Amino acid sequence: MNNKPGLSHGICQLIDALQCLPGVGSKSAERMTWQLLQHQTAQARHLAHSIEHALDTVNPCQSCNMLCDELTCEYCRHPGRDPQVLCVVESPSDVLALEQTASYRGRYFVLKGHLSPIDGLGPNEIDIPKLFALVTEHPITEVILATNPTVEGEATAHYIAEQLKSKHITTSRIAHGVPMGGHLHYLDSHTLRHAFIERKRL
Amino acid sequence: MNNKPGLSHGICQLIDALQCLPGVGSKSAERMTWQLLQHQTAQARHLAHSIEHALDTVNPCQSCNMLCDELTCEYCRHPGRDPQVLCVVESPSDVLALEQTASYRGRYFVLKGHLSPIDGLGPNEIDIPKLFALVTEHPITEVILATNPTVEGEATAHYIAEQLKSKHITTSRIAHGVPMGGHLHYLDSHTLRHAFIERKRL
Repeated sequence: MNNKPGLSHGICQLIDALQCLPGVGSKSAERMTWQLLQHQTAQARHLAHSIEHALDTVNPCQSCNMLCDELTCEYCRHPGRDPQVLCVVESPSDVLALEQTASYRGRYFVLKGHLSPIDGLGPNEIDIPKLFALVTEHPITEVILATNPTVEGEATAHYIAEQLKSKHITTSRIAHGVPMGGHLHYLDSHTLRHAFIERKRL
Repeated sequence: MNNKPGLSHGICQLIDALQCLPGVGSKSAERMTWQLLQHQTAQARHLAHSIEHALDTVNPCQSCNMLCDELTCEYCRHPGRDPQVLCVVESPSDVLALEQTASYRGRYFVLKGHLSPIDGLGPNEIDIPKLFALVTEHPITEVILATNPTVEGEATAHYIAEQLKSKHITTSRIAHGVPMGGHLHYLDSHTLRHAFIERKRL
């Protein structure tokens, strides 16, 4: 820890600790520290309690890894959801995004991120064996791969698809193309190329 | 609190609590929450403890309001600093910025922000009476007003200068002008106008 001259240990420790938050560097962390200690001590105490409370009550769903406060999440417990279709995503926030579309009524499986050998993230680290166990034990007819359309997300989808092919399970990948409401002019050429290749006859 | 469908109470509470941090809206708070609960539980626990520790140990200096972990801060205790010159700033971070210049060896007084009637911040709320008491009780020869060069900072400096004039204490304001290393082309016309009016004969 960098103990800044003129700052007490408690302040330096807080500036350091805040930098674990995504997108927060040393300058933002300093600004947050002053704000919390000078103007928002009540909110700061509430924030500390909220972090502790979430850490103590929230855990990954035993079945699908979605974060929840019971043994299994509400999507796995819900009797109205189709247990034969499984959608694989990279993060709990992707489940929420897909739920907002109100167009999917199957189950989910949340990976712990994506494959990234350079960061030491192999199949075991992101819970792919747990996914295969789930697929083998349950009568699943289709696995929809909805990892992010990034290099790592594509590689993760490709890896899972290859492995499931040997288990004779149908896999599908969410469609790539031009996003609704956008302008072609602003789109990257990679996406546009994909949209052309995957064009549909009307 | 907005309880999002599909999210446990603990997660919603944490997303809400994180939004007390400056510059953090609902989307960033969600991203931070997933990061903390999915990948960084140890760092999250450390962050909660650091906030509690800072709140329990850090307090404003009895004399100057600088945040510290003793009754008075190291600037007020330091025997080598000139007790006759007082520099007034808006925030503890401004003290650190001025200390980095290594060109000022007087004392400080940290206001609790700036005057802003629209936000209910009058002289009492930002501790101006404590400043006047300090100035009256100690043999201070000059008060340097180093509030920010914003509308509110200027108004605060002006208010303090007017009040101290009646106490026959010399006040000064940090210089406005073109910042070193910049280009005139990119500077706002207000600053440039100031730099022209305040030009110095060589």
